[in-house]
Amino acid sequence: MSAPLAPELAVSRWFNTPVPLTLADLRGRVVMLHAFQMLCPGCVSHGTPQAQRAHMLFRHTDLTVIGLHTVFEHHAAMTPVSLEAFIHEYRLTFPIGVDAYEGDDPIPVTMRRFRMRGTPTAIVIGRDGAIRHEGFGQEEDLALGALIGTLLAEKP
Amino acid sequence: MSAPLAPELAVSRWFNTPVPLTLADLRGRVVMLHAFQMLCPGCVSHGTPQAQRAHMLFRHTDLTVIGLHTVFEHHAAMTPVSLEAFIHEYRLTFPIGVDAYEGDDPIPVTMRRFRMRGTPTAIVIGRDGAIRHEGFGQEEDLALGALIGTLLAEKP
Amino acid sequence: MSAPLAPELAVSRWFNTPVPLTLADLRGRVVMLHAFQMLCPGCVSHGTPQAQRAHMLFRHTDLTVIGLHTVFEHHAAMTPVSLEAFIHEYRLTFPIGVDAYEGDDPIPVTMRRFRMRGTPTAIVIGRDGAIRHEGFGQEEDLALGALIGTLLAEKP
Amino acid sequence: MSAPLAPELAVSRWFNTPVPLTLADLRGRVVMLHAFQMLCPGCVSHGTPQAQRAHMLFRHTDLTVIGLHTVFEHHAAMTPVSLEAFIHEYRLTFPIGVDAYEGDDPIPVTMRRFRMRGTPTAIVIGRDGAIRHEGFGQEEDLALGALIGTLLAEKP
Repeated sequence: MSAPLAPELAVSRWFNTPVPLTLADLRGRVVMLHAFQMLCPGCVSHGTPQAQRAHMLFRHTDLTVIGLHTVFEHHAAMTPVSLEAFIHEYRLTFPIGVDAYEGDDPIPVTMRRFRMRGTPTAIVIGRDGAIRHEGFGQEEDLALGALIGTLLAEKP
Repeated sequence: MSAPLAPELAVSRWFNTPVPLTLADLRGRVVMLHAFQMLCPGCVSHGTPQAQRAHMLFRHTDLTVIGLHTVFEHHAAMTPVSLEAFIHEYRLTFPIGVDAYEGDDPIPVTMRRFRMRGTPTAIVIGRDGAIRHEGFGQEEDLALGALIGTLLAEKP
Repeated sequence: MSAPLAPELAVSRWFNTPVPLTLADLRGRVVMLHAFQMLCPGCVSHGTPQAQRAHMLFRHTDLTVIGLHTVFEHHAAMTPVSLEAFIHEYRLTFPIGVDAYEGDDPIPVTMRRFRMRGTPTAIVIGRDGAIRHEGFGQEEDLALGALIGTLLAEKP
Repeated sequence: MSAPLAPELAVSRWFNTPVPLTLADLRGRVVMLHAFQMLCPGCVSHGTPQAQRAHMLFRHTDLTVIGLHTVFEHHAAMTPVSLEAFIHEYRLTFPIGVDAYEGDDPIPVTMRRFRMRGTPTAIVIGRDGAIRHEGFGQEEDLALGALIGTLLAEKP
């Protein structure tokens, strides 16, 4: 396998999950990471509803959908308090983590580790923990579904 | 004219306008009020873009479009700081006021004065200052356009 | 009034009306003409549903919505038999006329009289019979509604 | 494999392919059949554009997308002449066959063989020729993509 191994998540607070999630614990499953900001129009209109659809559609499979709130601008406007209301109002039910900060860096840790270029970013990780897709901007449902179907079909 | 006269706005802070707006000063013009909350999904997907379209389409007419941020829930999540980022990210250019509070009432003042039932609410006021339409929820563009056209056609 | 007077319709067959319609008979009313072809994608996805919406929304007003099937290409593919099935399947209820032909001209008569450039074309005619708007392509609902509202507000 | 083997296509005329297609010849590939009628609103707005998207997205894979014009009503309105114009106007580029008739039966042969309930119907056939999915009505892109991805991942 030549794809790079996904770095670990760094999350300061979780929503919609009783326990913190780590990619290490999810090894053997397929993981879809949806990195977003609650005030990013392309996330709200396209990426976040798509993540919710994937969470519902594949809930009885080996796919885990994880939202990551990667705030790299307007930090005071998108605090966890605001995010919590956003999650409630948009009825999001998949696990969502707040990307952690380190020192004074306005770019959060996981965002840097994955070298994301902005939001929304969709990352799909195979059962072996390797990054199989990383896309900035809108993803077509048909292409995303095909990728997930392909990775789920691989032997655990 | 039997329609009730619109009560005055009570706004604690304005965006996108160098001077505060009052309905008294706008008498003689047609006014469209778009009451919204930045975390209300129906506002973000429908009502707020519609207000922006109306602002652009009628900018050379006697119509004034005013946004009113009527936060009645999740107050800590929708502060003016968050609203400012929302306005920037969604590229809204029409004047937007933050509905003011009085005492401990979680329902802001203008919202109470107009007896609004929730967000989004669209209110259209004639040149004479009377409320000619107040609707909670989605408004069809065709119907809203017709109403504005009719009111603009009335003699100042 | 400096706007040009609308030429008369030339229709070979009507659907959704017990009697033929003429602009002469409709003088005093506002008329919205929706010129379309049943195999024109922009008509089917936007213009024709918009005409149906206008027909329903303004059915208790002085507006008459008229569809005009102005076939200028693929004539054998868009016969009245096919149009009838189209009207049935898309549940169109406004009056629709088949634009008439003259000699060998592939461009039908009404289309030529109005100098239409293609489909969809939206034409709005005032109470005085003058053309107040003629637009090729997509019309915004908000702008169309405003125009209709303005013309309905004019004294008959 | 317990899924039923797909019956063969019965097509009287092909568009967008230099040679007739048969499922027998396509054994070893994954096949998506999109059964539609050109005057079926749900086909035109959803199913047919989805088939075109799948054709484009998977064109370098082992998936073959086939359209099937299964006219079971308004026969005189949806002749091959009309279909040809439809294909041209909607810029469809995937192979499309006209489902054949037998005797006086208004239901065409392939439609009967697959026991389709109406249009649109999406059928997905595995590399082994077995029907792996048959759905009447709208299919979600995400689910369809996942199914195609899964079947493409199976060994030829």
